[in-house]
Amino acid sequence: MTQALSDAALDQILRTARTFNKFQDKPVSDETLKSLYELAKWGPTSMNCQAMRIVFVRSPEAKAKLKQALMPGNVEKTMGAPVTAIVASDSQFYDHLPTQFPALPQARDMFAGNAALAAETALRNSSLQAAYLMIAGRALGLDSGAMSGFNPQVVNELFFPDGRFKANMLINFGYGDASGNWPRGPRLGFEDVVRID
Amino acid sequence: MTQALSDAALDQILRTARTFNKFQDKPVSDETLKSLYELAKWGPTSMNCQAMRIVFVRSPEAKAKLKQALMPGNVEKTMGAPVTAIVASDSQFYDHLPTQFPALPQARDMFAGNAALAAETALRNSSLQAAYLMIAGRALGLDSGAMSGFNPQVVNELFFPDGRFKANMLINFGYGDASGNWPRGPRLGFEDVVRID
Repeated sequence: MTQALSDAALDQILRTARTFNKFQDKPVSDETLKSLYELAKWGPTSMNCQAMRIVFVRSPEAKAKLKQALMPGNVEKTMGAPVTAIVASDSQFYDHLPTQFPALPQARDMFAGNAALAAETALRNSSLQAAYLMIAGRALGLDSGAMSGFNPQVVNELFFPDGRFKANMLINFGYGDASGNWPRGPRLGFEDVVRID
Repeated sequence: MTQALSDAALDQILRTARTFNKFQDKPVSDETLKSLYELAKWGPTSMNCQAMRIVFVRSPEAKAKLKQALMPGNVEKTMGAPVTAIVASDSQFYDHLPTQFPALPQARDMFAGNAALAAETALRNSSLQAAYLMIAGRALGLDSGAMSGFNPQVVNELFFPDGRFKANMLINFGYGDASGNWPRGPRLGFEDVVRID
């Protein structure tokens, strides 16, 4: 039977991990971004659809472009982060199913002919993968702070002009400076969230 | 600077972790389910909204009820799992924002007055939390297998008759028997998924 990870590891990935609003002045290399994806990619998705796409916004030019889409409260922390991931979903993720999920040959057509199902599946699975990305980052020693406070239409126009990819959320990545942390939010209790039938 | 977890820990949570279709004949206790939630709850959500709700389906009666909603290919593995989580979202998650995100007093009304935004936020964040739940399980030594192959309307009618909670996905939990594993699916490459701007 598999053992639980150490307390220190549980703390690092979830139990005492925090959302960071401020980062040290230390860049995040291409190699680190590659390690991050290469770990996160193993998380499971529905029919192995892997709907997530990522633009890592790192250059000053790309950061300035992204700034136009941010809600005011997210500008300073995002401009100060070494890199910001635009986590998007591929609205045509199903075109990869013949190679990614060959066990079900009709899988592509289930989604290609049903736009509402495809959009819901893309959002669900790119969100699962966004969580894997944050946890993978923490597991590798990389801090993060995710945001929904931006205008997705503006991000889509500026970063995905052909219309295929749709922004889901933004995640700042870097090496955290805890002096920018907010007080930790409470969590709902087991009895508020869970029922055992 | 935070160090990366050990190779063994990275393997356990993502790198060599697998989706299980078969489980050992070993029950999952209330205490284990509580530990699972108490670890997963720390993952970040938008405005700390914590939209996820869970029904752990464990009794024979509840399993028989769930069976009616399953696609044929998911019946055997789900009936054979010690416990199946119905991961749902609370369509009125925003009613908890005054206590969970007091920093923004107008947060509740942003969602209460915008059904489309509330539905998308509930799906996004309950999906993030479903990923935390699976990773937390793996970190605690609990195996899982998630599914979208079920009829959510039937689950909603049978398990959430008042209409407030909406089924998002199902996750079998238990102690895995690798003899039921499928061959591991491929993953899209870094260059297929990621752009650095």
